Amino acid sequence: MKALILLADGFEDLQLFAPWYRLREENVRITIATPWGQEATGSHGYVVEADSPIAEINPNEYDLLVIPGGQAPARLRLREDAVGIARTFLEDGRRVAAIDHGVQLLISAGGLDSRKVTCHPSIRDDVRFAGANYRDEAVVVDGSLLTGRGNEDLPQFCRSLVAGLAVRA
Amino acid sequence: MKALILLADGFEDLQLFAPWYRLREENVRITIATPWGQEATGSHGYVVEADSPIAEINPNEYDLLVIPGGQAPARLRLREDAVGIARTFLEDGRRVAAIDHGVQLLISAGGLDSRKVTCHPSIRDDVRFAGANYRDEAVVVDGSLLTGRGNEDLPQFCRSLVAGLAVRA
Amino acid sequence: MKALILLADGFEDLQLFAPWYRLREENVRITIATPWGQEATGSHGYVVEADSPIAEINPNEYDLLVIPGGQAPARLRLREDAVGIARTFLEDGRRVAAIDHGVQLLISAGGLDSRKVTCHPSIRDDVRFAGANYRDEAVVVDGSLLTGRGNEDLPQFCRSLVAGLAVRA
Amino acid sequence: MKALILLADGFEDLQLFAPWYRLREENVRITIATPWGQEATGSHGYVVEADSPIAEINPNEYDLLVIPGGQAPARLRLREDAVGIARTFLEDGRRVAAIDHGVQLLISAGGLDSRKVTCHPSIRDDVRFAGANYRDEAVVVDGSLLTGRGNEDLPQFCRSLVAGLAVRA
Amino acid sequence: MKALILLADGFEDLQLFAPWYRLREENVRITIATPWGQEATGSHGYVVEADSPIAEINPNEYDLLVIPGGQAPARLRLREDAVGIARTFLEDGRRVAAIDHGVQLLISAGGLDSRKVTCHPSIRDDVRFAGANYRDEAVVVDGSLLTGRGNEDLPQFCRSLVAGLAVRA
Amino acid sequence: MKALILLADGFEDLQLFAPWYRLREENVRITIATPWGQEATGSHGYVVEADSPIAEINPNEYDLLVIPGGQAPARLRLREDAVGIARTFLEDGRRVAAIDHGVQLLISAGGLDSRKVTCHPSIRDDVRFAGANYRDEAVVVDGSLLTGRGNEDLPQFCRSLVAGLAVRA
Repeated sequence: MKALILLADGFEDLQLFAPWYRLREENVRITIATPWGQEATGSHGYVVEADSPIAEINPNEYDLLVIPGGQAPARLRLREDAVGIARTFLEDGRRVAAIDHGVQLLISAGGLDSRKVTCHPSIRDDVRFAGANYRDEAVVVDGSLLTGRGNEDLPQFCRSLVAGLAVRA
Repeated sequence: MKALILLADGFEDLQLFAPWYRLREENVRITIATPWGQEATGSHGYVVEADSPIAEINPNEYDLLVIPGGQAPARLRLREDAVGIARTFLEDGRRVAAIDHGVQLLISAGGLDSRKVTCHPSIRDDVRFAGANYRDEAVVVDGSLLTGRGNEDLPQFCRSLVAGLAVRA
Repeated sequence: MKALILLADGFEDLQLFAPWYRLREENVRITIATPWGQEATGSHGYVVEADSPIAEINPNEYDLLVIPGGQAPARLRLREDAVGIARTFLEDGRRVAAIDHGVQLLISAGGLDSRKVTCHPSIRDDVRFAGANYRDEAVVVDGSLLTGRGNEDLPQFCRSLVAGLAVRA
Repeated sequence: MKALILLADGFEDLQLFAPWYRLREENVRITIATPWGQEATGSHGYVVEADSPIAEINPNEYDLLVIPGGQAPARLRLREDAVGIARTFLEDGRRVAAIDHGVQLLISAGGLDSRKVTCHPSIRDDVRFAGANYRDEAVVVDGSLLTGRGNEDLPQFCRSLVAGLAVRA
Repeated sequence: MKALILLADGFEDLQLFAPWYRLREENVRITIATPWGQEATGSHGYVVEADSPIAEINPNEYDLLVIPGGQAPARLRLREDAVGIARTFLEDGRRVAAIDHGVQLLISAGGLDSRKVTCHPSIRDDVRFAGANYRDEAVVVDGSLLTGRGNEDLPQFCRSLVAGLAVRA
Repeated sequence: MKALILLADGFEDLQLFAPWYRLREENVRITIATPWGQEATGSHGYVVEADSPIAEINPNEYDLLVIPGGQAPARLRLREDAVGIARTFLEDGRRVAAIDHGVQLLISAGGLDSRKVTCHPSIRDDVRFAGANYRDEAVVVDGSLLTGRGNEDLPQFCRSLVAGLAVRA
């Protein structure tokens, strides 16, 4: 099992660490990719090393895509390489887990039409215009797509994330 | 001539001060409204007193609505009163000037369909899904709707803002 | 299953959130206690509400004591009520999980003699003088006592924490 | 029409941006000069690129000198090149616009004797000892010398600044 | 022996603590006065309790006036009570010790004419216009007036401060 | 008379400057050593240049060792070279002055057995386990060992520090 995390400066720290550490606890191998392979700084100041530039990522090598929220997705959605990776995962029906503003990258990837989705409330209107069925819930599972609302929902988000691993095994 | 500025914490400071001071230079009377009438703090630390809570604003008393960007619009678009004011201005064809993320409030107000619009690049996909005709330009004027891209475009944004005043006189 | 977390200002944020959210994922009921029942602010700025002042805690109602690190334990070890709670857990042989500087509270509680322990390297000499058998390892389990070294070891710390829950069930 | 802005770290951000953007709105060509041509950081964190080191500036190429306030003028008045430029403008009777602590540079240039001047209140005694006729007013125009008191007076300062452009044309 | 320290927000921390602690070492009794008797915060974040509002100070009860620098003197020189205290000390020929921007308060008090003085270089021109004989030296002693240049000169400033105590004994 | 100050990032600023400037006032020659000879930043932001890397220090060339507190000693006690220097001073009976958390380095050096010591209250239990006789006093002098409790005690700490110089002369 291999997971890919897309990251950039301004990520919401807990939304990286909670799923990252949870997946490591399950022995999932994880690659963190940032725009130029440089380290990324969270909105609360945690600094994380990257394993790879996004441009060098082959999405077919990964079973799971994780997109933390905060201000990082606003940076990532401006990059064709990051948007393309999210699109590939969505189109192939492979597992995607996005939380909070992480859903912004999925909007840009154009794959939310008719999908049930939750996200940070401040982007709920954007999600609706993108054709998604917005739910104000802690987490929403729609097939291979897992979305979460915010920090307070991380325990449920992680539980669903790990439950999904079992399904794939 | 009376103008209304909708503000909340996290506004991009220059996007408030440049049009605010520019309109004062033209002797436009300005009301700053915040969610509870409390002071608002910009992302660079400037603190601004409010004249009124948003809920007590009657949009019909104003000729012009100004919406600075930054993180304030993400807060404002969660409030029915703020969204309703923007919707009233758009539907009545009265003048609206939004810059950067200020356009997020217009998306939530649901009045961007077929309008020519610019905004911060990170929300261009949201603007497109909302039906708008996105342009990557410094400022875009579409009838009574003026939109601007970002800080660097404030001189042009202010010039268009003031030119519009003359049209209305 | 009920767990108690002792907290004060300056806690290392991830060392609170990772075990807290992990235990919530397992449906453990958790009480966060601070010196006066006030909210606590982590060294990275996260603010957490408390459920109770420490002085009103009855340690016999809890199965597990969790002590995050950072600068909070230096504050807690100055308080007789916090030290007394840790001592009660250690003397009764009930489960204790401390990480990083959290071990400082256990030193003050006087129950580390001949116990195998890991901790933040900067207090390893204090742990040795307190009679403990210091190990430079990610996590150390010595009977009902679980200790962890630092942030990077949180995945293993959480795995041991949850494994211990199963033992008690 | 060409304007020169003298800048250094610690400038009061709005006192740079309001006149700078206002002049750009009027299509004035502007050169920003800093001690070594390096970028300058305002007291609220805005970072501005410089067009030139101060030492390479020929004051005779400019019609207008603008001196924002904050802590930058305290740095500039220690440099002979910056003081010399201000002195040249004052002695030649060319236009000078200074606001807040920007007036400190004019004190050091030695050209305030018998001039009517306003400034930040905390340096009013220095202005008086320098021979100036201090006024506690929003803006003061004395021939080719325009001075302003502080941020709140920027709309009037900019109005006078632009009115002066017309006079010169 | 009694000393008075005039303080306000923005004081340069070391310029308070070095002479304050040094005088305490010599068993001098010290009163710290701030504008409203409130605590004051230094530019590096140290917070100091005040003993008295400035308005309630009777300068005749003190043998020595100490004025730290930083941004506090710019606030103090705007207050008649603070300026009046400095003037009383200077006119009575009682001991005054000012360092860095602390000399700004002496300018406003109008008693520097023909006095030998050092100060922060950025206000040297103000000191000259005030009639003083400026010296670019670590410390300058002119009768009962001791002035210092900056942080690096604090050891010499404190030595002169204490030597002055002996003279008065 | 030569003194050595051991420093690292996170030192409590006043605990460096008060004794450092006080010793300079007495014309003591001082060497500041940091882990790699790099500059060190205090917890309040003061930046200090180093004279030497710790590894190049020969402790026999110094009459006095000064160890400021804050978070620097937690870094220093992890380094064999720093611990070794402290051990040499203690074993040789040469003068050592430590304040606040500076005493942590002495614990690691293993020379506190049966010594009378004060320190920051949060490490008093560590001091006791190390065999020292802990006193909750401003300063404690035990032969050639001077210890201080915290910032508020710096005047007494410096008085004892200087008194000790006289003894050695």
